[in-house]
Amino acid sequence: CLKAHELGIRVSVLSSHSEDPAAQVCRHWIQGSPDNEKDLNHFFSLNQTITFESEFIDARLLKDLQKKQNIKFYPSLENLQELQNRWTQKQALSKWKVPTAPYLKFSEPLTYEDISQELGTSFVIKKSIGGYDGYGTFIIHSSKDFETFKKTNNVKSEYIVESYIPFRRELAITLVRDLKGNTVSFPLVETFQESSRCLWVKGPTLSPQYSKMLKRLKTFIESINYVGVIAFEFFETKNKELLVNEIAPRVHNSSHYSLNGFTIDQFSLHMQAVTGLQVTPPSSFTSGFAMYNLIGSGSKKIDWTLTKNTQLHWYGKLENRPGRKMGHINTQGKTANACLKTLIHARKGFSI
Amino acid sequence: CLKAHELGIRVSVLSSHSEDPAAQVCRHWIQGSPDNEKDLNHFFSLNQTITFESEFIDARLLKDLQKKQNIKFYPSLENLQELQNRWTQKQALSKWKVPTAPYLKFSEPLTYEDISQELGTSFVIKKSIGGYDGYGTFIIHSSKDFETFKKTNNVKSEYIVESYIPFRRELAITLVRDLKGNTVSFPLVETFQESSRCLWVKGPTLSPQYSKMLKRLKTFIESINYVGVIAFEFFETKNKELLVNEIAPRVHNSSHYSLNGFTIDQFSLHMQAVTGLQVTPPSSFTSGFAMYNLIGSGSKKIDWTLTKNTQLHWYGKLENRPGRKMGHINTQGKTANACLKTLIHARKGFSI
Repeated sequence: CLKAHELGIRVSVLSSHSEDPAAQVCRHWIQGSPDNEKDLNHFFSLNQTITFESEFIDARLLKDLQKKQNIKFYPSLENLQELQNRWTQKQALSKWKVPTAPYLKFSEPLTYEDISQELGTSFVIKKSIGGYDGYGTFIIHSSKDFETFKKTNNVKSEYIVESYIPFRRELAITLVRDLKGNTVSFPLVETFQESSRCLWVKGPTLSPQYSKMLKRLKTFIESINYVGVIAFEFFETKNKELLVNEIAPRVHNSSHYSLNGFTIDQFSLHMQAVTGLQVTPPSSFTSGFAMYNLIGSGSKKIDWTLTKNTQLHWYGKLENRPGRKMGHINTQGKTANACLKTLIHARKGFSI
Repeated sequence: CLKAHELGIRVSVLSSHSEDPAAQVCRHWIQGSPDNEKDLNHFFSLNQTITFESEFIDARLLKDLQKKQNIKFYPSLENLQELQNRWTQKQALSKWKVPTAPYLKFSEPLTYEDISQELGTSFVIKKSIGGYDGYGTFIIHSSKDFETFKKTNNVKSEYIVESYIPFRRELAITLVRDLKGNTVSFPLVETFQESSRCLWVKGPTLSPQYSKMLKRLKTFIESINYVGVIAFEFFETKNKELLVNEIAPRVHNSSHYSLNGFTIDQFSLHMQAVTGLQVTPPSSFTSGFAMYNLIGSGSKKIDWTLTKNTQLHWYGKLENRPGRKMGHINTQGKTANACLKTLIHARKGFSI
């Protein structure tokens, strides 16, 4: 909303509460649910183009409605449907020869031994739809772990299983492709997860397989005719190979650093891409940058002191829940490591 | 509104139309007029701190209401009242020994000769209250000009008269002072006016008297206990002296460049200053920067193509009037001149 406004793009938001973060900064807020046909029809009647903050939408319902109304979806509903589901996402990656961890579809009565034979003794079970920030992800190192997973989860849901990849680092990159097919990319960055949740991002970084991977990803999004921002998360393995771990078909936490110290940020680029403007390559003003997530503890009292040369982006979420991303801080400097150090210090000023 | 949201500051906007630029990006928009007591009382009941986008407010009415409600105004109503009126503004500058053009209060039956004797044969008549972008400003080079002014204007209004200053350049600087008395400043910049309306700003620049002037301005805002962003516009005279031309007690067009390529922008700093946060010095990521205003022509059809490495800030004003500031573009680069060149080129992409 903030960046669309600066670009002269009029935005409406469909969400359930008037105090939802996006609703707070949008005059044209429509109360409703993205799963409700009536709400959607009303919302569509007010807009020309629809884009998404979350890929977890009912793509079939939206496709049905799209047939009846002359409305554009960017990214397309076909792309969202394929990428929102980890199984079809993996299949798409395989189809376009993008390296990814070995995987299989989980279904009963698969045993620990069956899976181990295919994927190794350690593997990761993930909900096919709706998982994020570690929710819906289960790391299995033994048959005991596997039994616990089965006891505590509804195994009738859709899951996929992936080999557990012991990695050197986790990396990420964000691409943007516009309606005319121009693609631009943000730098390769290192991300760090704590309890399966991104804690910080620093960049830029290098990896031997990166330029080859970038080429493949460009071919991939070209091939599926993707429009908008798309983020790829990688494992850099012990022998420095790159494997795509996950795809996010939307603006993504791993590029929130771009809100400061760049010629253009991921949100502005997404807006340009989906409204038919030509995307231009983002570049960093400094040789290093970093982002640190402000993760809630559930505390009732929120307070902070700001540190020089860091920028706060508070999301305005009403409830401070433990583990919830409440905002982030950015900084820019000479090196990625120096920036991360600045932010670790700056984080101490926050009591959330 | 945009920057307050990022800082976790909840904002309400009081304005007359739901499509006013600020209202478009604010959930808590209150329809009303800042001159209407009932509207103000309602608005005040919803907020703790009030700040201003325009200094042309009824300071007396607001002062009366402030007595009845426990509400803070930053900048203070005393400051606004003094600085919104060119006569008292000039007197304040004189009191604190800030160099400014010679001036006198206009009143009938002053003749061209009377004024010429005091201020020279060329002088400028300005409305004491409410003038901006050249509106309410009259340049007089002859007794004929003076007669025309008298015939076409209501000379019963309050005016001041200033010596006409033949200048080398016009310059500007923005300061920010927080509630604890910390003051930070943006770089000195050159501004260029066309038809008395700012067309572009480039920076940073130098001027021999600048550091002396900066010291005086810091003393000035300290002395009047000013809180928030304040902009000073200067004439750099033929012999490179600096004279304050005008003061704007608010965020100002001459610092809109700070929205990109800076560690922090004037809007974020204003929000920090007026909400009790400590302001931190802004610094530029590049050795040059520039801003170019997008001034309306009145055309019904608005269209644009964006240029690489420039950033658009469109204000969302509903009506495109000739001479109206509809938005601006920013860029960053090696030198102020290179940036201005980039923007002159980028401006060609806009049909407004």
